Amino acid sequence: MAELPVDVDEMVVRALREDLGAAGDVTSVAVVAPGSTCRAHVEAREDGVVSGLPVMERVFLAVDPSLEVGILHEDGAALASGAVLARVSGSARSILTAERTALNFLTHLSGIASLTRRFVDACAGTESVVLCTRKTLPGLRSLERYAVECGGARLHRFGLFDGVLIKDNHVALAGGVGQAVRLARRNAPHTLRVEVEVESIDQLEEALAKGDAILLDNAELDTVKRAVDLVGDRIPLEVSGGVTLERIGEIAGAGRLLISVGRITHSAPALDIALEIE
Amino acid sequence: MAELPVDVDEMVVRALREDLGAAGDVTSVAVVAPGSTCRAHVEAREDGVVSGLPVMERVFLAVDPSLEVGILHEDGAALASGAVLARVSGSARSILTAERTALNFLTHLSGIASLTRRFVDACAGTESVVLCTRKTLPGLRSLERYAVECGGARLHRFGLFDGVLIKDNHVALAGGVGQAVRLARRNAPHTLRVEVEVESIDQLEEALAKGDAILLDNAELDTVKRAVDLVGDRIPLEVSGGVTLERIGEIAGAGRLLISVGRITHSAPALDIALEIE
Amino acid sequence: MAELPVDVDEMVVRALREDLGAAGDVTSVAVVAPGSTCRAHVEAREDGVVSGLPVMERVFLAVDPSLEVGILHEDGAALASGAVLARVSGSARSILTAERTALNFLTHLSGIASLTRRFVDACAGTESVVLCTRKTLPGLRSLERYAVECGGARLHRFGLFDGVLIKDNHVALAGGVGQAVRLARRNAPHTLRVEVEVESIDQLEEALAKGDAILLDNAELDTVKRAVDLVGDRIPLEVSGGVTLERIGEIAGAGRLLISVGRITHSAPALDIALEIE
Amino acid sequence: MAELPVDVDEMVVRALREDLGAAGDVTSVAVVAPGSTCRAHVEAREDGVVSGLPVMERVFLAVDPSLEVGILHEDGAALASGAVLARVSGSARSILTAERTALNFLTHLSGIASLTRRFVDACAGTESVVLCTRKTLPGLRSLERYAVECGGARLHRFGLFDGVLIKDNHVALAGGVGQAVRLARRNAPHTLRVEVEVESIDQLEEALAKGDAILLDNAELDTVKRAVDLVGDRIPLEVSGGVTLERIGEIAGAGRLLISVGRITHSAPALDIALEIE
Amino acid sequence: MAELPVDVDEMVVRALREDLGAAGDVTSVAVVAPGSTCRAHVEAREDGVVSGLPVMERVFLAVDPSLEVGILHEDGAALASGAVLARVSGSARSILTAERTALNFLTHLSGIASLTRRFVDACAGTESVVLCTRKTLPGLRSLERYAVECGGARLHRFGLFDGVLIKDNHVALAGGVGQAVRLARRNAPHTLRVEVEVESIDQLEEALAKGDAILLDNAELDTVKRAVDLVGDRIPLEVSGGVTLERIGEIAGAGRLLISVGRITHSAPALDIALEIE
Amino acid sequence: MAELPVDVDEMVVRALREDLGAAGDVTSVAVVAPGSTCRAHVEAREDGVVSGLPVMERVFLAVDPSLEVGILHEDGAALASGAVLARVSGSARSILTAERTALNFLTHLSGIASLTRRFVDACAGTESVVLCTRKTLPGLRSLERYAVECGGARLHRFGLFDGVLIKDNHVALAGGVGQAVRLARRNAPHTLRVEVEVESIDQLEEALAKGDAILLDNAELDTVKRAVDLVGDRIPLEVSGGVTLERIGEIAGAGRLLISVGRITHSAPALDIALEIE
Repeated sequence: MAELPVDVDEMVVRALREDLGAAGDVTSVAVVAPGSTCRAHVEAREDGVVSGLPVMERVFLAVDPSLEVGILHEDGAALASGAVLARVSGSARSILTAERTALNFLTHLSGIASLTRRFVDACAGTESVVLCTRKTLPGLRSLERYAVECGGARLHRFGLFDGVLIKDNHVALAGGVGQAVRLARRNAPHTLRVEVEVESIDQLEEALAKGDAILLDNAELDTVKRAVDLVGDRIPLEVSGGVTLERIGEIAGAGRLLISVGRITHSAPALDIALEIE
Repeated sequence: MAELPVDVDEMVVRALREDLGAAGDVTSVAVVAPGSTCRAHVEAREDGVVSGLPVMERVFLAVDPSLEVGILHEDGAALASGAVLARVSGSARSILTAERTALNFLTHLSGIASLTRRFVDACAGTESVVLCTRKTLPGLRSLERYAVECGGARLHRFGLFDGVLIKDNHVALAGGVGQAVRLARRNAPHTLRVEVEVESIDQLEEALAKGDAILLDNAELDTVKRAVDLVGDRIPLEVSGGVTLERIGEIAGAGRLLISVGRITHSAPALDIALEIE
Repeated sequence: MAELPVDVDEMVVRALREDLGAAGDVTSVAVVAPGSTCRAHVEAREDGVVSGLPVMERVFLAVDPSLEVGILHEDGAALASGAVLARVSGSARSILTAERTALNFLTHLSGIASLTRRFVDACAGTESVVLCTRKTLPGLRSLERYAVECGGARLHRFGLFDGVLIKDNHVALAGGVGQAVRLARRNAPHTLRVEVEVESIDQLEEALAKGDAILLDNAELDTVKRAVDLVGDRIPLEVSGGVTLERIGEIAGAGRLLISVGRITHSAPALDIALEIE
Repeated sequence: MAELPVDVDEMVVRALREDLGAAGDVTSVAVVAPGSTCRAHVEAREDGVVSGLPVMERVFLAVDPSLEVGILHEDGAALASGAVLARVSGSARSILTAERTALNFLTHLSGIASLTRRFVDACAGTESVVLCTRKTLPGLRSLERYAVECGGARLHRFGLFDGVLIKDNHVALAGGVGQAVRLARRNAPHTLRVEVEVESIDQLEEALAKGDAILLDNAELDTVKRAVDLVGDRIPLEVSGGVTLERIGEIAGAGRLLISVGRITHSAPALDIALEIE
Repeated sequence: MAELPVDVDEMVVRALREDLGAAGDVTSVAVVAPGSTCRAHVEAREDGVVSGLPVMERVFLAVDPSLEVGILHEDGAALASGAVLARVSGSARSILTAERTALNFLTHLSGIASLTRRFVDACAGTESVVLCTRKTLPGLRSLERYAVECGGARLHRFGLFDGVLIKDNHVALAGGVGQAVRLARRNAPHTLRVEVEVESIDQLEEALAKGDAILLDNAELDTVKRAVDLVGDRIPLEVSGGVTLERIGEIAGAGRLLISVGRITHSAPALDIALEIE
Repeated sequence: MAELPVDVDEMVVRALREDLGAAGDVTSVAVVAPGSTCRAHVEAREDGVVSGLPVMERVFLAVDPSLEVGILHEDGAALASGAVLARVSGSARSILTAERTALNFLTHLSGIASLTRRFVDACAGTESVVLCTRKTLPGLRSLERYAVECGGARLHRFGLFDGVLIKDNHVALAGGVGQAVRLARRNAPHTLRVEVEVESIDQLEEALAKGDAILLDNAELDTVKRAVDLVGDRIPLEVSGGVTLERIGEIAGAGRLLISVGRITHSAPALDIALEIE
């Protein structure tokens, strides 16, 4: 469903260069005969949502286009520990050389997808949806957003360029919400909504009169509920700040919200996945 | 103490491009007057070990060389929530544009340093040291290793090119430990130690006779202790596999070990750090 | 007012490489002594709006950081033939080497700014504004948008990534305007408006009920006027298609419109500007 | 006949990155189902000379190698409005994503070829030929030269590296035509002709005695005719400066001239070409 | 046997760009019809060891993937003058364009392999082996190491990153051999041996007690022999400095040595190899 | 006199990356304290002509801009063994890290300059000059040409793009010398001379009637003399093929010749130069 980002091959090449340097896999070249072949499978070692199998495949093929890689599940599938995710066969040297880089992508992206899914599941039965943020690891944003989509959450703006988000500092520097929104409408492309960040109901009322969307940051549940009442379906209402797995359920139940969660990208532990040579 | 990696500026540029695209920070450009200035400080929101302050500085300066950045602590310092880590002043547009990218580096690296420090502290009073692994996030390895050093752990090989590590699959494909080590000695540079991975005492005894270092993977504590007795100070003995904060203390107490821990790089949650505009 | 794009230095380097190759300016190196200096000025040879003086400066400085470049007018200024735009002094070799590349940027961008200004002036006294499009020359978009701003027009989305524009083909493939907008709202970031392209009043009425903005393409003046009546101030109304200097005045007078014009970027003739060595 | 430049794929990738950013075509991804297919054709909307069809094809294939692109005319063909230039079929998403970038190349290059052809046709029946100059748009020179060849004109030097052209400033700095030519012969590769720019018959006579080619800049028709008489077939005689479509015929009739024209590259309006989805 | 380096294609592209620039092979494009084909063979003009045939093949295929290249010998083979190394057929333009770049790789690498083989042969019958050094030509190290392997010698560390080599200056700055080795063991990865450079037997004795390998630099034969006696098989013993073809035999006979030789990479004359079009 | 090539900094960065990888100089970082400083000088160990001192300086400054580098001789100077070429002082780590890469440039370029000077000196008192060829080491051409100029020889065309050289194969494929020259004049820029390669006096006579320069390849001395008589001062006459130090004197004495010599770039041994830390 989610689309691999356009720069995935660059990331794969960069990661392989990082692991191989210019001198390459000295162990495998020294120890394994060039013609040796083997078969391997990639296996989940804990329950979770898989993401990154096509990235893993590209790593193997970037190392050696003659490897045969069979992917056995779709990204986004929830799998139990022990599930076999893929099979690889061909040159033993090539498989050993690619293994760690392939797994580094797969375990990281699956870790994000798995944590995301838990947040998404905690919103089940509500009208709210989970969004990612720009709190991603440097250089990995497009892939991490892909993993977020595999986990079932939705995308926020990619970067500073595809959304106008007026924060408190912008408001202060512009001289008020009204002036900030006016400047944004005049100077930013009309294709971008003007979203205004607020921290109180007073601020929200002003923003509601001027903006195209509202971000309510760091609010208590009561404030969220009042915000929902005030905004209704007029414009999108986003909430953020301190959204934990414990809290997200009750927030989500407060109305039709966009709930943005930083920790699904900046703090997701890797999912344990291993490659076994048979 | 630790040295910033040689490719840090490339990573900074890449991360800024990711967040800015070609269209830039549309909000700040639209809303904030070009000449506006402000002052901000960077503040820890939880206890931990800081890492990445010079990287953060490079982000700010890459966006705008006229910004003034004052770093108030050395990377590697343990700081309490509320500590002010740095001050930034200058163009308001520039500070707002750089903020998220700067924090994405700082919170990730400090997260790694903080978790690393916990593993290191758990080995206090023993002769063992903590090592990082190659289980790093793609494209960030050199910076993550820097953060590991800030946390007090030591470095393992950077990649496949600066160490010979003969794993079970290499042994199987070469036809035995002896033959694998022989090939490694003949074909790999003599500047690299030949380390052999083992999973049992039997394998260890063979490896001890042939190799320059031993990696004991996934062993019970008893096995680790027997390995320590057998190896003594003859060659380095590394252990790995399932090393949690709970377990590392007793492993470390078993002797003079190199304990390699994947989770300090692949699963460290971000440290909560924020930028406040004054 | 307009900001130079973040990738301007890359474009400058690319253009210089194009002109210099690896072998460099063989004439100047062969004929001009290394220490020779000279003074030059850059002069408009026809009336127009200047754009690109800071880019020109970067070209000179990229060739030789010791050159002194004095810029005498701000980008966006309307100047008469004969106006002196800048002065350059220093190494004669360096000035001769940089000359053509510097002028190629300056004459192209000033050509765009000048033509844009004519469209903008033709809307004077109306509530409508002129927008650029994605019909730019490959690899030069960010600079051409800068020139458009110098000319006094506003920016449309930069690319495919910072705006949702549902065209007739999207509608056909999605199965109707309603379904297309629904999919866009679910799958695209909420920070992007959903703009719908229409070619008739019937289509416009449906789009008005569903979308966040409307693009009326290739419409007669009467249709534009009816559209203005229907849309009012509810959402942005953009018109495009066949907008010439002759026609734009009456279109602009029809209401508060965003008028997007491809020819200001894809067909602007260069403004005649020359460098004179004194 | 003309050869696509060696860097065409780099330009294609750069242009696609410009339009897609890292976030891609958000509209098509959001609205069009991944498996949807369609057929389209590319059609001239005005008379002209086509150039860039293989570039357009590379754009489509760079977006999606599974697209089928059928090119129906050779670059350089003169076509009437309404002519179908190419057909494309395959993934609807891919075609919509590639459309604008593909057309931006095709309409620009065809614009250059069309204007060039008009200058070339105006020289029909004479012994003179039309040349392009270095007045090209930054980063597009190799493709623009290709388009010039499609239009029927010939190539001048590519850049500063593949020809020696001694201008008035070089002469002044070297201390006379004789000294400038002497230095050029000693210091530049003998594989390059030494061409000397002159503005009068007096200068021409000196240049004729020393150089390998002459560029007569900004001369009246009478001067051109006298120059032709003086130079004869001894060395190439190039004229430049203010060469319009109105004037080129009589210049061309004056003798066997190389007539270099800047406006065919720096001021050619785009040719109107559209992609229609069927 | 030797593996082509991972960056070979980058080197090929860089070399072709160097020779072709952006303007390409103007002679062949001007003079040879696009459809012309020819056959050629690559022939040794002097005796030697060939290296780089697969690199040569990549050059031809990078210029034109439709060329047919048949390689007739394996890299590392000793061949007599007159031997035909490869055959190429296909587009005449493409073959002429690729010829010089292809030969520049092949003659340089074969020159290295040939000189290396002479040093290796001079050690025949001894227990010593020849090593390359870091004295390689900038940007060509990985390929030159490949050629060294084709010549029969072994690899030293690739760069500063895959070996610890403590030289006299390191010792002086650290405050003694013992302290330098102690710091290296603490701060460098345990996967790297700590090699110590010495120039006398006294220094050697200290190094033997502390380090993992010894480099004896600039020593007389007698000193080498004493060093062999002292070191025995305990750790690797490398000798370097002024190792000529005349001297290497007697050095090699002194024991089991690693003999590193700079001149096989920094001073190997090209092997004379030509391409003949049939 | 000679100009450093425009891409020198790219080559420096590439060479440093090659030697440092991503992991850097592990020895110096491990063993030398960050604040340690030292002084060093660069010293010739054999007689020769120096070339590359400014390149060496750029290597040091690329590693550490705070190093102080004092260059004591101009490139092109003939120096005796023992001459001190430069002094460097500052961070000891930085100097040790840069040393090998700096010397690899300096010894290679000085090797070329030294061998070139011997060929140039062998022509002293004649009217002939020495030229380099395209037989350079891949990726190093622009710097090697710089070294050739330091040695006192002149430059031939840089690559395939800045000269037309019609070889026997071009003649055969075009259908005769006359037709090949005619095609070259029509299709290649008029800024390039058309040089024709010949191997006999018969061929030379035809080439003399058609071309702008002649390359006489692999000719005996008698043939060279007859060629000189025939060509006189009409067009440049180049000779090549088997030009050794032994033969070049008598060739050069035969007339006013351009003598191109491949071995000055493809087979020059490094000049022995060392860095000594004081």
